[in-house]
Amino acid sequence: MHFDHAGIATTDARELAELYGDLFGLETVHEEEFDGMLLVFLDCGDGYVELLEPLEDGPIAQYLERRGQGIHHLAFATDDADRALERVRNRGVRTIDDEPRPGAWGHSVAFVHPADTGGVLFEFVEH
Amino acid sequence: MHFDHAGIATTDARELAELYGDLFGLETVHEEEFDGMLLVFLDCGDGYVELLEPLEDGPIAQYLERRGQGIHHLAFATDDADRALERVRNRGVRTIDDEPRPGAWGHSVAFVHPADTGGVLFEFVEH
Repeated sequence: MHFDHAGIATTDARELAELYGDLFGLETVHEEEFDGMLLVFLDCGDGYVELLEPLEDGPIAQYLERRGQGIHHLAFATDDADRALERVRNRGVRTIDDEPRPGAWGHSVAFVHPADTGGVLFEFVEH
Repeated sequence: MHFDHAGIATTDARELAELYGDLFGLETVHEEEFDGMLLVFLDCGDGYVELLEPLEDGPIAQYLERRGQGIHHLAFATDDADRALERVRNRGVRTIDDEPRPGAWGHSVAFVHPADTGGVLFEFVEH
């Protein structure tokens, strides 16, 4: 499985995208309103930085309240998100999603429970 | 600039490496005791997951006490860490390191201050 993106929770996705462009030369390649969030994807060569700004109450708004801005999740690309979830469950690790669901950018996504993976929220992305 | 690794603070790097191997098929490619930490690098295709376990008191031990286990930093690879730091400072963003210093795996590294980058601790890695 290979790196797909790092998701960052922020109060201002466009401002942060501009800053990361200036600091790191990262280019914005996709912007989308999805599921009550403004999502901005920046190309970092072999994957993306995803900026998540809440537009209404929801998991990202709650994360910002609880933890403040910062890295929210790590995503791996997979050819088969169903099989990836099965592999995780077979290891006795809980998943947040029972099956892959439609995600941003037309992808199919599924999340693994961070309590069972060393405190890290992992996402599978099937392109 | 392109993705180099995501650093994860953990209380048990070897156990987490084994779990991530099982769950995500990530292979351990490097292990090192460095600066009071056990570091384990897992290959994720176009970069690495770095597991950081404190062996003594220090920034990672303090991070674990304050925030618990989880994603600690994001690193970008650069050909010139000095120039990367200069670019950051010219934008008025604070850096933790005034100049690149020896890091794990024989690399040269430098950190940017998370208070100025949307709560994310970024590292430059010059291989």
